[in-house]
Amino acid sequence: MARRGGASGPARICSPEAAAAELKTARSRGIEFVALGEPDYPPRLQMTDDPPPLLAARGQVSILTRPLVAVVGSRNASAAGVKFAERLARELGKAGFGIVSGLARGIDAAAHRASLGSGTIAVLAGGHDRIYPPEHADLLETILAEDAAVSEMPLTWEPRARDFPRRNRLISGLSLGVVIVEAARRSGSLITARLAGEQGREVFAVPGSPLDPRAEGTNGLLKQGATLVTEAADVIAVLEPILGRGLDLPAQEPAREAPGPIETEPGEDQRSRIIALMGPTPTAIDDLVRLSQTSPAIVRTVLLELEIAGRLERHGGGLVSLL
Amino acid sequence: MARRGGASGPARICSPEAAAAELKTARSRGIEFVALGEPDYPPRLQMTDDPPPLLAARGQVSILTRPLVAVVGSRNASAAGVKFAERLARELGKAGFGIVSGLARGIDAAAHRASLGSGTIAVLAGGHDRIYPPEHADLLETILAEDAAVSEMPLTWEPRARDFPRRNRLISGLSLGVVIVEAARRSGSLITARLAGEQGREVFAVPGSPLDPRAEGTNGLLKQGATLVTEAADVIAVLEPILGRGLDLPAQEPAREAPGPIETEPGEDQRSRIIALMGPTPTAIDDLVRLSQTSPAIVRTVLLELEIAGRLERHGGGLVSLL
Repeated sequence: MARRGGASGPARICSPEAAAAELKTARSRGIEFVALGEPDYPPRLQMTDDPPPLLAARGQVSILTRPLVAVVGSRNASAAGVKFAERLARELGKAGFGIVSGLARGIDAAAHRASLGSGTIAVLAGGHDRIYPPEHADLLETILAEDAAVSEMPLTWEPRARDFPRRNRLISGLSLGVVIVEAARRSGSLITARLAGEQGREVFAVPGSPLDPRAEGTNGLLKQGATLVTEAADVIAVLEPILGRGLDLPAQEPAREAPGPIETEPGEDQRSRIIALMGPTPTAIDDLVRLSQTSPAIVRTVLLELEIAGRLERHGGGLVSLL
Repeated sequence: MARRGGASGPARICSPEAAAAELKTARSRGIEFVALGEPDYPPRLQMTDDPPPLLAARGQVSILTRPLVAVVGSRNASAAGVKFAERLARELGKAGFGIVSGLARGIDAAAHRASLGSGTIAVLAGGHDRIYPPEHADLLETILAEDAAVSEMPLTWEPRARDFPRRNRLISGLSLGVVIVEAARRSGSLITARLAGEQGREVFAVPGSPLDPRAEGTNGLLKQGATLVTEAADVIAVLEPILGRGLDLPAQEPAREAPGPIETEPGEDQRSRIIALMGPTPTAIDDLVRLSQTSPAIVRTVLLELEIAGRLERHGGGLVSLL
């Protein structure tokens, strides 16, 4: 889990043994891994250009496959912004949407709190053992008791500045749409809005007075064509028709696993079959599963091993190649 | 000036002598009359479906033919709304636009004050001798010293509730576009916005927090497609191309009057020539001028006499017929 397509810098190469040890540690801490191509993998995220190969999820993992809306905004939120974020998240929760946000101070925390129990997902910029901001460790525990948190980073990954925009693509990628509640002129929420647009997601913005600096970003988004939101109905009116059209996912092989415990430890012959199918030409993970006659879980584990060993390159659209 | 296409109720019929007396009184009070079809008549207003046949104007009448923008909003304005209205009116004034508003408390008064001298027009719901609200008599005097006020009502007309929507169609009709700064859910400003839309004018709205009742109306307009305004540049960007296309008025005969005092008292033969050209079929005022070989001012005076006598019907597009 050390080297990703999006991350720069030298690859941290570790042995398959070290990778297996990290997986074991993580599982002992209640973390489940959901791999690209698996039925539990968030379907909208899978449709993006750079879905993480593996999501580390804690809590109610099933929330990840529900219809999701992101509610994000400034850390330095106004009381009105916090109040509105709470109202919106509560009403969207009642309407059946899970709420995705970034566990930040201000709007994010308000959105999480108001959707506790109805379905809230905290998307972390660091690993599950490096909560940011630290003062939200308690909030995260509350979220995990009823809902879920996900990360694409190793367990002890300390979030750096550049990990936040990277994380923001997950917030928008998981969601049908992103609601920006308050945002100053240059702010992380606007990055999330831009990523959402690039991912073909709906962008919603809450208006504010032109004299309020915390509304500069959202008013700017509205000028660029974001949908204006003053109540949950504005969001639902746009998203319901999209849900009605279905998720429009690429055709997927039916899962081959029998009911019961899922075998994820690849045998040596499975491992070599999968690697033999791969080369410098990008190949669909779905094809690897089909052609190797193994399971998505086995393929995922082998790809993870390759990735940790620095031998895998991830491309957009669920394509991989050997380095 | 008593009976208009828009007003219901029995016609107040008065003699040509009474009409002439009112005109004389008004002129002695510094009021100029500008009739439909005359060069001084506001060109945008002339393009509407129900332009007033005669505008009673005080102050710098030439402002009426400049590019105009209306800035209107709630009487019960917030401090932020007032501040924004001032800033907007000042910047639009600097950009060469005259500001049209309704002399009301709150946003209207702020817009007038901030555009004093750069060109501001108060459009009255009553006659020039019945200022509403009375406490703005001083503001009106200040406006008249540098700029202008107009009314389509008789000098002593006491404004009734229904005269305000009627007046609002003049505010929008005079203007290239209407900016609504603050407006509650049901408010007069929204009527102005609706009329502006019906007249094909640009509708602009200033966003506000969903928790601010004074922004409910403007946010609603934005949802319906009004252009979002946070600064004067947003208005100018939309209006400049319209100005660039020219005023797109119907072709008009060049004025026939020689320089010098304009003769507006029709001779008896002129009066009968004009009336002879008219009948139950709607006829263009421009045609009456051309075919009677009189001046627009003469035609205007004859039409006014007919109207006061209850013998004239006004149709859209500068058409009139005899009753």
